[in-house]
Amino acid sequence: MPTNPLFFGADWNPEQWPEHVRDTDLALMREARVTAATVGVFSWSRLEPSPGVYDFGWLDRVLDGLHEHGIGAVLATPTASPPPWFTQAHPGALAKRRDGVRLVHGSRDTYCVNAPAYRAASLRIATVLAERYARHPAVRLWHVHNEYGTWCFCDHCARAFRTWLRERHGTVAKLNDAWTADFWSQRYTDWAQVLPPRATQYLGNPAHELDYRRFLSDSMLAAYAEQRDAIKAVAPDAQVTTNFVLGGWVPVDHARWSREVDLVAIDHYPSSLDGTPAQSAFAADAARGWSAAAGHDGTWLLMEHAPAHVTENGVQRRKPPGMLARIALAHLARGSQGAMYFQWRASAGGAEQWHTAIVGHPGPDIRVYREFRALGETLAGEGRAPSYRSAYNKVPFPTGEAGSPAAGVGRGEVAVWFDEVCGWAVGASHLPAPLDYQGVVESWHRALWRRGYPIDVVPPTAALAEYRVLVVPAAYLLTDESVRRLDNYVQAGGHLVVTYLSGIVDEHLRVRTGGYPGALRELLGIRVEEFDPLPPGAVVTLDTGDLAAGWTEHLTAPGVEVLARYPDGRQAVTRREHGAGTAYYVSCALDDAATARLLDGICAATGTVPILPHLPDGVEAVRTPDGVWLFNHTDEPHTIAGRLLAQGTAAGLAAA
Amino acid sequence: MPTNPLFFGADWNPEQWPEHVRDTDLALMREARVTAATVGVFSWSRLEPSPGVYDFGWLDRVLDGLHEHGIGAVLATPTASPPPWFTQAHPGALAKRRDGVRLVHGSRDTYCVNAPAYRAASLRIATVLAERYARHPAVRLWHVHNEYGTWCFCDHCARAFRTWLRERHGTVAKLNDAWTADFWSQRYTDWAQVLPPRATQYLGNPAHELDYRRFLSDSMLAAYAEQRDAIKAVAPDAQVTTNFVLGGWVPVDHARWSREVDLVAIDHYPSSLDGTPAQSAFAADAARGWSAAAGHDGTWLLMEHAPAHVTENGVQRRKPPGMLARIALAHLARGSQGAMYFQWRASAGGAEQWHTAIVGHPGPDIRVYREFRALGETLAGEGRAPSYRSAYNKVPFPTGEAGSPAAGVGRGEVAVWFDEVCGWAVGASHLPAPLDYQGVVESWHRALWRRGYPIDVVPPTAALAEYRVLVVPAAYLLTDESVRRLDNYVQAGGHLVVTYLSGIVDEHLRVRTGGYPGALRELLGIRVEEFDPLPPGAVVTLDTGDLAAGWTEHLTAPGVEVLARYPDGRQAVTRREHGAGTAYYVSCALDDAATARLLDGICAATGTVPILPHLPDGVEAVRTPDGVWLFNHTDEPHTIAGRLLAQGTAAGLAAA
Amino acid sequence: MPTNPLFFGADWNPEQWPEHVRDTDLALMREARVTAATVGVFSWSRLEPSPGVYDFGWLDRVLDGLHEHGIGAVLATPTASPPPWFTQAHPGALAKRRDGVRLVHGSRDTYCVNAPAYRAASLRIATVLAERYARHPAVRLWHVHNEYGTWCFCDHCARAFRTWLRERHGTVAKLNDAWTADFWSQRYTDWAQVLPPRATQYLGNPAHELDYRRFLSDSMLAAYAEQRDAIKAVAPDAQVTTNFVLGGWVPVDHARWSREVDLVAIDHYPSSLDGTPAQSAFAADAARGWSAAAGHDGTWLLMEHAPAHVTENGVQRRKPPGMLARIALAHLARGSQGAMYFQWRASAGGAEQWHTAIVGHPGPDIRVYREFRALGETLAGEGRAPSYRSAYNKVPFPTGEAGSPAAGVGRGEVAVWFDEVCGWAVGASHLPAPLDYQGVVESWHRALWRRGYPIDVVPPTAALAEYRVLVVPAAYLLTDESVRRLDNYVQAGGHLVVTYLSGIVDEHLRVRTGGYPGALRELLGIRVEEFDPLPPGAVVTLDTGDLAAGWTEHLTAPGVEVLARYPDGRQAVTRREHGAGTAYYVSCALDDAATARLLDGICAATGTVPILPHLPDGVEAVRTPDGVWLFNHTDEPHTIAGRLLAQGTAAGLAAA
Repeated sequence: MPTNPLFFGADWNPEQWPEHVRDTDLALMREARVTAATVGVFSWSRLEPSPGVYDFGWLDRVLDGLHEHGIGAVLATPTASPPPWFTQAHPGALAKRRDGVRLVHGSRDTYCVNAPAYRAASLRIATVLAERYARHPAVRLWHVHNEYGTWCFCDHCARAFRTWLRERHGTVAKLNDAWTADFWSQRYTDWAQVLPPRATQYLGNPAHELDYRRFLSDSMLAAYAEQRDAIKAVAPDAQVTTNFVLGGWVPVDHARWSREVDLVAIDHYPSSLDGTPAQSAFAADAARGWSAAAGHDGTWLLMEHAPAHVTENGVQRRKPPGMLARIALAHLARGSQGAMYFQWRASAGGAEQWHTAIVGHPGPDIRVYREFRALGETLAGEGRAPSYRSAYNKVPFPTGEAGSPAAGVGRGEVAVWFDEVCGWAVGASHLPAPLDYQGVVESWHRALWRRGYPIDVVPPTAALAEYRVLVVPAAYLLTDESVRRLDNYVQAGGHLVVTYLSGIVDEHLRVRTGGYPGALRELLGIRVEEFDPLPPGAVVTLDTGDLAAGWTEHLTAPGVEVLARYPDGRQAVTRREHGAGTAYYVSCALDDAATARLLDGICAATGTVPILPHLPDGVEAVRTPDGVWLFNHTDEPHTIAGRLLAQGTAAGLAAA
Repeated sequence: MPTNPLFFGADWNPEQWPEHVRDTDLALMREARVTAATVGVFSWSRLEPSPGVYDFGWLDRVLDGLHEHGIGAVLATPTASPPPWFTQAHPGALAKRRDGVRLVHGSRDTYCVNAPAYRAASLRIATVLAERYARHPAVRLWHVHNEYGTWCFCDHCARAFRTWLRERHGTVAKLNDAWTADFWSQRYTDWAQVLPPRATQYLGNPAHELDYRRFLSDSMLAAYAEQRDAIKAVAPDAQVTTNFVLGGWVPVDHARWSREVDLVAIDHYPSSLDGTPAQSAFAADAARGWSAAAGHDGTWLLMEHAPAHVTENGVQRRKPPGMLARIALAHLARGSQGAMYFQWRASAGGAEQWHTAIVGHPGPDIRVYREFRALGETLAGEGRAPSYRSAYNKVPFPTGEAGSPAAGVGRGEVAVWFDEVCGWAVGASHLPAPLDYQGVVESWHRALWRRGYPIDVVPPTAALAEYRVLVVPAAYLLTDESVRRLDNYVQAGGHLVVTYLSGIVDEHLRVRTGGYPGALRELLGIRVEEFDPLPPGAVVTLDTGDLAAGWTEHLTAPGVEVLARYPDGRQAVTRREHGAGTAYYVSCALDDAATARLLDGICAATGTVPILPHLPDGVEAVRTPDGVWLFNHTDEPHTIAGRLLAQGTAAGLAAA
Repeated sequence: MPTNPLFFGADWNPEQWPEHVRDTDLALMREARVTAATVGVFSWSRLEPSPGVYDFGWLDRVLDGLHEHGIGAVLATPTASPPPWFTQAHPGALAKRRDGVRLVHGSRDTYCVNAPAYRAASLRIATVLAERYARHPAVRLWHVHNEYGTWCFCDHCARAFRTWLRERHGTVAKLNDAWTADFWSQRYTDWAQVLPPRATQYLGNPAHELDYRRFLSDSMLAAYAEQRDAIKAVAPDAQVTTNFVLGGWVPVDHARWSREVDLVAIDHYPSSLDGTPAQSAFAADAARGWSAAAGHDGTWLLMEHAPAHVTENGVQRRKPPGMLARIALAHLARGSQGAMYFQWRASAGGAEQWHTAIVGHPGPDIRVYREFRALGETLAGEGRAPSYRSAYNKVPFPTGEAGSPAAGVGRGEVAVWFDEVCGWAVGASHLPAPLDYQGVVESWHRALWRRGYPIDVVPPTAALAEYRVLVVPAAYLLTDESVRRLDNYVQAGGHLVVTYLSGIVDEHLRVRTGGYPGALRELLGIRVEEFDPLPPGAVVTLDTGDLAAGWTEHLTAPGVEVLARYPDGRQAVTRREHGAGTAYYVSCALDDAATARLLDGICAATGTVPILPHLPDGVEAVRTPDGVWLFNHTDEPHTIAGRLLAQGTAAGLAAA
């Protein structure tokens, strides 16, 4: 078991290779200062070749080998892909699409999470694994399943959904009320009439769809918890987690799940090469926010990211030299307990044979491996990157206070509100214009990130009081509890920035009537009469010179300060003092520059300044407990605070 | 019961709200001079909470409330959405897609119109409603179902289709002949072999598909007639209709259906904001044409349109100030018996919660309600719009002679042929190039509309004799009867303009051979040898300077006058005298300007002039019995006939 | 039976017309010098109106009529479309899609090739036809089925697939190894667990998918062979073939099938009008390559092409005057035994009523028929096209040596490697960037074709030794046998040009590790470390000035000659001497001009010159046994070797 607490390594599947490759891999890992390897993911058909018949020999040797080389194991339960024998024995336990098509094996995630046979088989293999390996000295962390997020609409789900709804709503009458079932004659009179939101003639009921996503999240969480509890029953001290996969299509409420894991762990796959630094910062800030709000200390773990590419519109863009270390270090600076990759050795066959790896198909004699090894040396304090090594090693790993957003790991002064359930609400609704919820949230985060402010991304349950500025972008769904917390925040002196399409519906997607945004009208001192979404390409110039596109509104704001107006004089951006704080409303979709200008003004008014002043675009500063870390994401050198930072590199400054 | 015959109001769903909202709504309606409210649509699950158990209390109160406030009721049967208990009891009565997927409840239109259980349940609820309310003093019009148009491909439909085919074709041998079943070995030997056009490997048989759409239209018409007859059995004087929804995807032959309703009623949802005036004119002219051809007097009713938005490529474009009244009045000028909206009060939840309403989520204190109320005052003769008020009130509502195209409501001098069955034929066929049938028809209508000609849109069964000019665009399918009528029209002195792809196939989609257009070759004096569709972007300049794109042809026209030629000298546009009239042929897709120039020439030659000369683009003139009404659809003022017309407004002139 | 060995004619379906049309058609065919007509395709419902009940009268009269007019018959078995009674009797014998949807009749290809009932019915009708007509004097060639290529995923296929896999792989353990089944836990323990690659949650296994395409090809080949053998059992001298349809979506390995036919026959439908000459040349060269490699003499037959149009993005572009003859003659020059069209007489109804025909809907008095008749006269040696008539008739039809690529029909000096199975491999894989395999192959062929080199397109089994230059574009999958053959080719003095993404995986889609391209690393003397696909629109300029886009690589090539470098100095194009030959590697996707420049250099170095020097772009030269044939595909005249060649025409030169 390594003494270095950092997780540095990758997913490793030695079962796909002859035995001698395993030994080669272990030597290479040692050479690269690997501290942890994730094993066992997708190995069910190896571990249990037929029902109840186990083959642990190979995994014994893998774990022993890791231990002998001083490498910790992140041991996965293999339940994300039942073997073909499972389908054969339980064809009814596979998932169905909305249209009733049964999805068979031949890929991954081929199960219905609510099928009793699947749950029983999963629990059994997890239990057997725990019994065998819970005390194995290599095992450092348990990794239940993989990237929960599979949809299903089958009859098992229908039954479980009804039970879940009964618990949530109590009576059919309350369900009808919550779902506005009078619309289109959808009033239920018997729980048995309720179905998953399967294929239907025309638009579905948004409340029905939203509850189904909540139900799927809870179903998967129950499946996770079952395995976690089985492991802890054998080894109460075991650390257990699962790897979160981000994306609007995943019906998993990660803020809620974070309370059920011992360490928040995320996989991160950006969608564009140029967007990778900003997207990575957002994901890391979100993971830290989940961790803190769930009562952990704000630290978390980057469980997977790609070594050498970013898939952009179907093309694997190659990460240029230096980017491997730079992105890994940026995650560490934001509180990750390590940098884990998918995957160690590129598979020769299978669906993901072209996913990049530390050891590619050509073997270890490739740039990626060399960069990875150099990063390992750096992280082990032996490396050739002295500029941030000392700072980094001074405090082995930052820790924060439990329950507060990772104060110790670069506690921000500005927070961005991010609620995945709100994203589902948006996705389930038929809005006046298309809205990319997470895209809007990320655009506000990016504006702050570019200007170098210390930022957190926080879920609705986060402690808000210590932030000077809180930005709430497009929070379409706000619960009564959230509304109260936001009001308290401002009353107590907080500076709240709310954008269009926030506070519109309650938790059941019912519009809060009386004038938009129903939940925040009083707090903001405004009343929106009409939405006025713009067609693609149309732009409006405000009296400030700022540009808006996509979304505008018609509002009244008697007695409230107006910061920007539409061409016809109507209010576009407003400011109201409330209690000891202020509440801003932004009724349109500002472009990036305008967003940045607005935020600069608001932050300046609250005494919030960038971590370092006058940073060039593309140079990132992150405040860590042992000083400021710098990342030059550009293609040219920059001198920051007197230090020359070569293109594509990272460096640390003495604590500010 | 109001004395004002106009229908002015909206769909109203008080059952979605607490009782006190109903009273608020009634007061607001009275304030806005509402004369009619559509109630009961989609209320089945409220009216019959479980099979055979009824709850009429709420509807009693709604109808009584309307009556007390002097507002008429358009009372709907709720059969467009069976309640969830219906699915539970009759899962086999729900629709199936082409691929066999059963579509479940959770939306609207969740039924198979040919399922006996659905028909029985529908007839029962309609009968019970009629028995209870047929003599209620508020009930002014019955509104059966809602927007018929649901497809289904299930076994109920298969059986009904066979019966329908047997009646239509008589024998399997005749079916094989009509469907050209020898192609691809589709010869039937037993009625039992015939299926709906379900999912298949490759291209389907166009004749099969076309007959299926006819069959669906007739199936739905039978379902409508059943309910209508049940209502009339109780109250023989009841006025009964259903609201037509327009669109190429709807398998409903509205010309045929118009004979079965007491008042032609349409819903109209344009597809672009800028295109709304022209699209509204087309829809209104088509409704008037259906009414007249079906033996009514040419009047009709705009049963639904959106108060405040036009959905354009997924974005709700906001109707600017003034447009609400302007578009409503334009419909009235074209013979609508009123202006009804969907909907009165915006739903807080449900799939269409974001559809705009007279009373929006903010309540009545919004621009839309204020504009609606002002329109109500105007229509009631009390309003602040004196410019057309006097003219409007002089003749409370225009009436025409039964059987002729609404002569009294602005009888046109130019007619445009529009046959929805032809549109289905085009949609079912695999043409040499894509063709948007209705788009082509609308482009010819729009060209005439822009130039200010008095236009009607007429189905094939219309009385043609009184039109000076008849335009037949892309009438791909012409029956023998239509061919004879067109010939008679010209013989008797009519001026016929036929475009490319007209008269190509018979009623069974069999090409009329011997040279295109087989049905009209002799009448036009031409023979088309080859089609020559152009790729997107390609343009041909005729010797007249006119531009053609999309479609050209190679034809011979010995001894016929040539009005325009292709660059290589071939004939593009021809003119032939025949009997007392003339027949023009346009072999290519002219651009808008060229179409207008051509029509100007033809109209001038027949003595047909615009309603007012020299109208600016975007200013519309409609001839009504009490004078010409003007509509300024532009963003600037215009002076017309000495009267200043502000931007976005409407006005009336003294009878010309 | 005509003495002219050429096949000149079309698909003919007199069963769709009254009897008198048949006589008209025969007279017209005679007038146009037609030598062959394909009959019986899709006539099953006429031939066997109900199970076991036959009606041969009409076909007797058709064949007798052809014979009386001296026209040969290409007699088809009708098994591509079972009649509706077949569905009625055997609903389980129709194909299922991946998602389990059963596809019904109403189109063509409505069967599962592995359904016993379908196979039995097919064999029976083929046998009965053979017994009746095998000795009919008109029958010149048997045409089994039509355009094999239908996918199915049903349980019949599942069973047959398992049998096929067992024969291919022997044991489940070997299957797991071949399919890399450890990835995502897909390890099988029982053959019964193996399914077709049906709908699944996420990415499928490429090896599974590839084997399924191979299996479908073999299934269809078995069905073909069954019918062929039944015919030969009756008439051992019968010539039997089927018409290949080309396209990446067709799971038919035409190189393999070519060994099972007596004459390779293809249908050819280009995808763009301007691209038709190059696409036709490629298809013809591929057909000749299949013929030669399969042990035939390199001749083949163009069984179908469209008389008057090319469908381009859904628009039927009209072939301009002259193109009908020009394209037919270009096929003949490349070894086709004739020029057959789909179809003779345009169907009045049915799905393909708008497919162009020799006798269109207007009848024979159309340009297409006149051009066809003129071509017939030319081919019969009577025509008005003396420029190539003499040369053409001098050698009635070119013949080559069996087993070598059609030496007698314009044996090329440059070969382009084309392997449809490789295309399936690419289509089944999830590559680092999208790759259009056939598009890349065609781009190399087109570069050579434009420059006028004598080219063959060869499958992996071709005799390679006699080619001076062999281009292997994007040969992602290379078997061990192919690798050995390529090495031998170079050793023996060949000049091999290999592009990026060649030699990457073995026959089971397992990456050959150790550095790309694993199969050819040593031969080429290079080692690729990383792929670097470029995003759309990005371009790299090599030090030669050549442009690359789409794909680049990072490679090392110690001691190997470098022909072009990337901007950072890395090797882009290399050359290595090996044995008596040389091996070039092109690591990027060059644009057309750069490809041509590179090939010019390589050809020049091997003494390979264009057929005629300095041909203008769009003028094509084909070397035939009786001289060079010229085709002017441009819109202007060109003088070639002293002869004036009008726009759009073809001509022959004396043997070079």
